[in-house]
Amino acid sequence: MDAAEFRRRGREMVDFVADYLENIEQRPVYPDLEPGYLRSLIPTEAPLEPENYEDIIKDVERVIMPGVTHWHSPYFFAYFPAASSYPAMLADMLCGAIGCIGFSWAASPACTELETVMLDWLGKMLQLPEHFIAGTHGHGGGVIQGTASEATLMSLLAARCKAIRRVHASIPENSEADILSKLVAYTSEQVSTKKQFPITLMYCSNFTHISDLINAHSSVERAALIGGVMMRKVPTDNSYAVRGDMLKKIVEEDKAAGLIPFYFCATLGTTPSCAFDHITELGPLCNEENMWMHIDAAYAGSAFICPEFRPLLNGVEFADSFNFNPHKWLLVNFDCSAMWVKKRADIIGAFKMEPLYLKHENQESGRHWQIPLGRRFRSLKMWFVFRLYGLKGLQAHIRKQVDLAKEFESLVRADKRFEICAEVIMGLVCFRLKGSNELNQNLLKRITESREIHLVPCQLSGRFVLRFAICARSTESRHIQQAWRHITQLTFEFFFSPCASAIFCG
Amino acid sequence: MDAAEFRRRGREMVDFVADYLENIEQRPVYPDLEPGYLRSLIPTEAPLEPENYEDIIKDVERVIMPGVTHWHSPYFFAYFPAASSYPAMLADMLCGAIGCIGFSWAASPACTELETVMLDWLGKMLQLPEHFIAGTHGHGGGVIQGTASEATLMSLLAARCKAIRRVHASIPENSEADILSKLVAYTSEQVSTKKQFPITLMYCSNFTHISDLINAHSSVERAALIGGVMMRKVPTDNSYAVRGDMLKKIVEEDKAAGLIPFYFCATLGTTPSCAFDHITELGPLCNEENMWMHIDAAYAGSAFICPEFRPLLNGVEFADSFNFNPHKWLLVNFDCSAMWVKKRADIIGAFKMEPLYLKHENQESGRHWQIPLGRRFRSLKMWFVFRLYGLKGLQAHIRKQVDLAKEFESLVRADKRFEICAEVIMGLVCFRLKGSNELNQNLLKRITESREIHLVPCQLSGRFVLRFAICARSTESRHIQQAWRHITQLTFEFFFSPCASAIFCG
Repeated sequence: MDAAEFRRRGREMVDFVADYLENIEQRPVYPDLEPGYLRSLIPTEAPLEPENYEDIIKDVERVIMPGVTHWHSPYFFAYFPAASSYPAMLADMLCGAIGCIGFSWAASPACTELETVMLDWLGKMLQLPEHFIAGTHGHGGGVIQGTASEATLMSLLAARCKAIRRVHASIPENSEADILSKLVAYTSEQVSTKKQFPITLMYCSNFTHISDLINAHSSVERAALIGGVMMRKVPTDNSYAVRGDMLKKIVEEDKAAGLIPFYFCATLGTTPSCAFDHITELGPLCNEENMWMHIDAAYAGSAFICPEFRPLLNGVEFADSFNFNPHKWLLVNFDCSAMWVKKRADIIGAFKMEPLYLKHENQESGRHWQIPLGRRFRSLKMWFVFRLYGLKGLQAHIRKQVDLAKEFESLVRADKRFEICAEVIMGLVCFRLKGSNELNQNLLKRITESREIHLVPCQLSGRFVLRFAICARSTESRHIQQAWRHITQLTFEFFFSPCASAIFCG
Repeated sequence: MDAAEFRRRGREMVDFVADYLENIEQRPVYPDLEPGYLRSLIPTEAPLEPENYEDIIKDVERVIMPGVTHWHSPYFFAYFPAASSYPAMLADMLCGAIGCIGFSWAASPACTELETVMLDWLGKMLQLPEHFIAGTHGHGGGVIQGTASEATLMSLLAARCKAIRRVHASIPENSEADILSKLVAYTSEQVSTKKQFPITLMYCSNFTHISDLINAHSSVERAALIGGVMMRKVPTDNSYAVRGDMLKKIVEEDKAAGLIPFYFCATLGTTPSCAFDHITELGPLCNEENMWMHIDAAYAGSAFICPEFRPLLNGVEFADSFNFNPHKWLLVNFDCSAMWVKKRADIIGAFKMEPLYLKHENQESGRHWQIPLGRRFRSLKMWFVFRLYGLKGLQAHIRKQVDLAKEFESLVRADKRFEICAEVIMGLVCFRLKGSNELNQNLLKRITESREIHLVPCQLSGRFVLRFAICARSTESRHIQQAWRHITQLTFEFFFSPCASAIFCG
């Protein structure tokens, strides 16, 4: 394909994209097919000769779209939002064209330098403490990671390195391997792949996936596995948040047993219920105990650009690293996860980088504080989005979505058959029918099979709970009202169905 | 920005992209500025109010382009290619619009399933052994990683887990920590950040970056650091390749010292000179020694779709994992790194995944065999590229670029002042002026400062060597000829300059 044809096909694709997003409401939000559907729809091998572009575009509708879960449908309320905006998409086109691989400053200076400044812009929007902002000639700085998982891993590896060095320096007889075997990392019990509901016979095999997400956000567990350290879960309070005394208790137990607590991943906005660990208590405790505190605010972090939510970030001044995902809730298309560290030297030391990398410290974007060597020019997306929305536009987006969540919460509260399961602070509502877990599993099954709206569940205090997350940028009040009508209709139908009798009587 | 404006701006961006790529030859290939240039060009904070789109586009030329190293200029001959094609860019637009996060099958079935089939298509193009292909109901399979670094890390972690289990099972008294402390990973001495030239006073501070790449491709070293295992470098032969006897010798030494060799990363197409480790010897050795063999063919792997190059992959049947980057040389824009494993269970086991993930094995794309949880719909790029080029079109691309490398090699060989430093097998030519390292450093400095072509150096047998890699898709014979004229012109000027006297006389 040459440039002339690209100009033509590019215009067609722009229209395809706009058409898709403008009409996405008409599509069933969740696919109706069995695993393995796609293989039978396309050849088993690549073609020998080039094919026609029109045939490929036809196949987008025939092969791809039936299998797409439409994350940007205003009827998609599952997981957490995946951010998307037209400015970000435009920036991504430019990023693809420039197509540089920014593994070093020289590989494309603009790539490295724009990232540094964009992380400063973003850090200032969140009113991060000055020591995180690179531009103030401090010791800290920011970097764009691909995902929160990579940020968590990097922070844990830096913490591991720091802890081993510290302990080894004070007790040289202990080998590194010995110290490693005693290190313990901690995180909230809300972060877990293990607290899952047994897959009951009520679910067909398609729905095993749901357990992928029940209380899952296993990035911290993966990081501990990779880092070769033990991990322990800290119990949470009635609001599903970690308090200082709970962490203190478990840390004291482990120290008494000869272990070395070295890392705590605090979560601001847990996946199940968007709970907030009490970092004003946890921060000082971690500092006293020489424990690295990493804050994972993957979803909630975007809201801290609003003054009314910023107090939830108080305590970040105690953190060694902080991460959130603009690609969840700040209109920047995936991938774009922002991570800041208090001391660049900690991360760089973890990789024993050559001293020359430290030479240009004030221009360093932290690009070495990551797993991959290569990276795209992702900061272009931030630059376009931040300038085309302005801080006010970004705040308006957050506030609108929080309002929609509150609207849904009101609908739930007004219906005495239902209950709200956790405080609604941001854009997530956890709710359920008053009654058994089986009842709620059945309701969710019907919701999923109807394919009009899409939700996923979680587990809170042993109860099966439905999560309603405001996701698509185009979600409006009418979608909330329609979703609730749909849920209550299904509930009504269910109470008069044979299944219901079985549940209530047997 | 709404859909109507996106249709308009999208068309403009399509033209901007096409204009940029059609006229890229007119731009200096390498920027002329100092680190820190960008910060002074833009505000220190995000705007409060939305800005005009036109102002942002003007700033792309004012702020960004001066700092871009133009990877897709036909005068860019540095590092290795970063693949780019119009079909891939179109697919990326679609990917951004669908904007699903494919962390589970249900999150977007098409995302998971197309990836599985695309990895099979690609595996068949490379004639990988059947056990790597998921579709044949074997134990193996493929996954798209972001980069070769992540693939290397995954393979090392899987190998670590497997080794610890094996040794622990046979000698239960050994603790996991104890076993871990004895594990040794191996790779070629050509993979190294440490073999760097001292930064001489001849270089201004801008050029410290060059050492980033001299013999660097430190993904294996990073993986060993992260995995907490020792790493040893295996000496290479006169062609900079690892032979079986060299690995055997070092492994025997380490076993005699009580260590546990567990992993070897073989490189097909090393970064400095595109050398090929002898995997027909190394494979059986690794199998005998219970060492995981991972093959990193980041750059060269794409060429194995051509029958004339496929023999270089013989021995892959012994490998536990194999990785190469379509985003280097197969016309698929970054990111797209393809990884196959012989036994899915090895990788899954490394993460101790819940059994339910194993239920749909034959539809599993291996999406859990990676660090991040979230992922873009990257396989769309492969689908568009493979269908719009066809296998023949992809082969033609590889062959054309290899021919251009051979053309450059001929020019070098015809000039007795120069020497070829390593066999030219694919798209990379290593060459230098006969003479001191200082002479060649000076030549490269002049080349870089002229900004007409862009090269980076490497070290081979203690000598400073210039690397000429065919990169941009639009590179033609006239660019090769022009590049050589430029190099010889600079050489001519140099021999009559005061610097030359200093070097020759002092």
